[in-house]
Amino acid sequence: MKACIISIGNELLSGQTVDTNATWLSGKLFEIGIVTTGSWVVPDEQPRILAAIRQASQDGNLILITGGLGPTKDDLTRRAVADYWDVALEFQPELLAQISDFFEKRGKKMAPNNRSQAYIPAGMMALGNPIGTAPGLWFHKDPVHLAVMPGVPVEMKRMFVDQVVPRIARSAEESVVASGQLRCFGAGESDIAQKLGDLMKRGRNPLINCTCGSGEIVLHIIATAEDKKTAQAMIQKDKILLRQCLGDWVYGEDDQTLAAVVGDLLKARHKTIALAESCTGGLLSQMLTEIPGASDYVRAGWITYCNEAKTNQLGLSQEVIADFGAVSEPVARMMAQQAAQKSGADISVSITGIAGPGGGTDQKPVGLVYIAVVVGGDCRVEECRFPPVNRHWVRLRSALTALNLVRLRLAV
Amino acid sequence: MKACIISIGNELLSGQTVDTNATWLSGKLFEIGIVTTGSWVVPDEQPRILAAIRQASQDGNLILITGGLGPTKDDLTRRAVADYWDVALEFQPELLAQISDFFEKRGKKMAPNNRSQAYIPAGMMALGNPIGTAPGLWFHKDPVHLAVMPGVPVEMKRMFVDQVVPRIARSAEESVVASGQLRCFGAGESDIAQKLGDLMKRGRNPLINCTCGSGEIVLHIIATAEDKKTAQAMIQKDKILLRQCLGDWVYGEDDQTLAAVVGDLLKARHKTIALAESCTGGLLSQMLTEIPGASDYVRAGWITYCNEAKTNQLGLSQEVIADFGAVSEPVARMMAQQAAQKSGADISVSITGIAGPGGGTDQKPVGLVYIAVVVGGDCRVEECRFPPVNRHWVRLRSALTALNLVRLRLAV
Repeated sequence: MKACIISIGNELLSGQTVDTNATWLSGKLFEIGIVTTGSWVVPDEQPRILAAIRQASQDGNLILITGGLGPTKDDLTRRAVADYWDVALEFQPELLAQISDFFEKRGKKMAPNNRSQAYIPAGMMALGNPIGTAPGLWFHKDPVHLAVMPGVPVEMKRMFVDQVVPRIARSAEESVVASGQLRCFGAGESDIAQKLGDLMKRGRNPLINCTCGSGEIVLHIIATAEDKKTAQAMIQKDKILLRQCLGDWVYGEDDQTLAAVVGDLLKARHKTIALAESCTGGLLSQMLTEIPGASDYVRAGWITYCNEAKTNQLGLSQEVIADFGAVSEPVARMMAQQAAQKSGADISVSITGIAGPGGGTDQKPVGLVYIAVVVGGDCRVEECRFPPVNRHWVRLRSALTALNLVRLRLAV
Repeated sequence: MKACIISIGNELLSGQTVDTNATWLSGKLFEIGIVTTGSWVVPDEQPRILAAIRQASQDGNLILITGGLGPTKDDLTRRAVADYWDVALEFQPELLAQISDFFEKRGKKMAPNNRSQAYIPAGMMALGNPIGTAPGLWFHKDPVHLAVMPGVPVEMKRMFVDQVVPRIARSAEESVVASGQLRCFGAGESDIAQKLGDLMKRGRNPLINCTCGSGEIVLHIIATAEDKKTAQAMIQKDKILLRQCLGDWVYGEDDQTLAAVVGDLLKARHKTIALAESCTGGLLSQMLTEIPGASDYVRAGWITYCNEAKTNQLGLSQEVIADFGAVSEPVARMMAQQAAQKSGADISVSITGIAGPGGGTDQKPVGLVYIAVVVGGDCRVEECRFPPVNRHWVRLRSALTALNLVRLRLAV
């Protein structure tokens, strides 16, 4: 099966919205062994949508369309699909009931123009949208399989995973490509390439690719085999080999985030955690609490953004701040110690630093960050000097480094 | 002038590399008044590259190609371009000198296969690549303008800005496109479409498009005129018109985020703010502190994730939590009031709710969130029932709604 993806919307062509749907979809298709051979971004114009569908049906036998299913006049996908397969748009009373139900449950009244979303091309199957108003479409007429989904990424992703993938799987040929990931933190891309040497050679099967962002390195292991089981066994074997090479640089696999790995460690060790953040302003707490079930181990957090918050809320002395400055080893240490004591948590982490763009000096430049981790009363402080790329980057890097320090302390 | 973008490379179609080039290019083209009407991602296969060029020359008169210029056997762009325009590949000694010079300067020896990069289609102009080995191409044969650039984003961007834009500008027609955005919160896409009615009609100039995500709606105003000044005046006029229609649903323009707008309001009113978060676990604080200069108005925050943190850190009574539950109007109210009192901030916000996936009941389902805002001692609590899309979405929607409530209280 070969896939073609059509993303519809003027906003995607004006450079104002990034089309993340096509990339996400081709990644998901890849996981189930389907290669995407073409991808088109077309404006909200009927002839252009028709031309793209025509091209896609020549180039592939699985056409995925996202966008243009809304209730407004610039939403033309339903009409174009009906025209291409030369069928009429039919009104579906049960779809209208679902859409008006969606509004009712939220205590709102359906606008009259949402009625247009209850029309679908005759002979096609509507795909329910539990989190939005636009239903999707599924259609199979040999050799073409067609799925039409909303452009809103969260709605598209849910519909694709829950309703489109099972339908594709029923029609797909034997898949022969599988992939897995190992996630690393604490080393640069070239350190890792050096360690791996010939393992990263082109043409090797499994193929090992490397991508990076914010200090995190992801190794992609892509295995080709006669059947899925063999491919997955090859990936497992390589994961073990790579872990032996890279040691504790490897923090997780596949979709795991650093925060999720730390959460799992806390749960496994029956430990609780407290956070005290200055320059990251809640980012570290946010990452930890984003994981479902975080209430099992996250007890409390303090965002002591101004100096008075550090003294009043966490009980730091004004002298230590005056003597060493808010961005200093002793302040980081006391923030973490006080957070542990006040919350009763087993583990605590503090971050204080200069995220920029302003506030840097020669002695204390933008990117200088102190991270303290207390485990069982033992406090260790790390001084980090991150490149001052920008505020967002320094904050993100600080929070990830803090998570990694907790991971290394807990993994022992 | 109408542009078509072709991105070449197997890695773009495997889902492992995101094609950011096409999005970046269409944004840059838009800034200089050129609309992109199509965008294709094609694999490293000669017939597919030729088919894409054929399609692009039908759909536009400016073709931008990125990728496939490397020295290896899977780099076929030069050959495909030569074939399409039916010319031979010619060896250019001065290009070879540039490429070998590139290696020499870095203390490396040029590999023999880099020699292939010194061949270009006869009659085309080579574009120098100061930061890589692959030269680009420029070619103009009415009506088509062609630019071929490397796929590596940093090389492509530099070549586009320095060498392609000036050549395009010399050939561009008179009509200019400009765009602006109005950002809305608090209404759905269909509410807004209803209010705007014929203003969103296709074919209108300026054209008004609507995109949405996490409850935020963005209206794109795209004006076509004889010159930039006229187009920008048309956008300004429409912004005023749309603001009149939509009232306080409009929170900002262009690149402004809700957090930045709230930050600006706080600064303008000389007010400080404190946060108390339960289910959002630091997300709201993180958004506010992401804005440079946030230390002017963010005083402190509490992440009272467990009940003991609510009683010990913020001084809520155990009775109120036992009687009403941690997710309740009285708890939200007391969290906000205590945060204001303890921090001395003028304004405080609290969020308590059920983000899911677990923890919901019939009475208190996932998505139930209470948000309290205290301004000058006056506390108002909003009960929100968000669709339980997923944990991330409920948290994001809660934090954005909190920011919007602060905006509305401050805007008065």
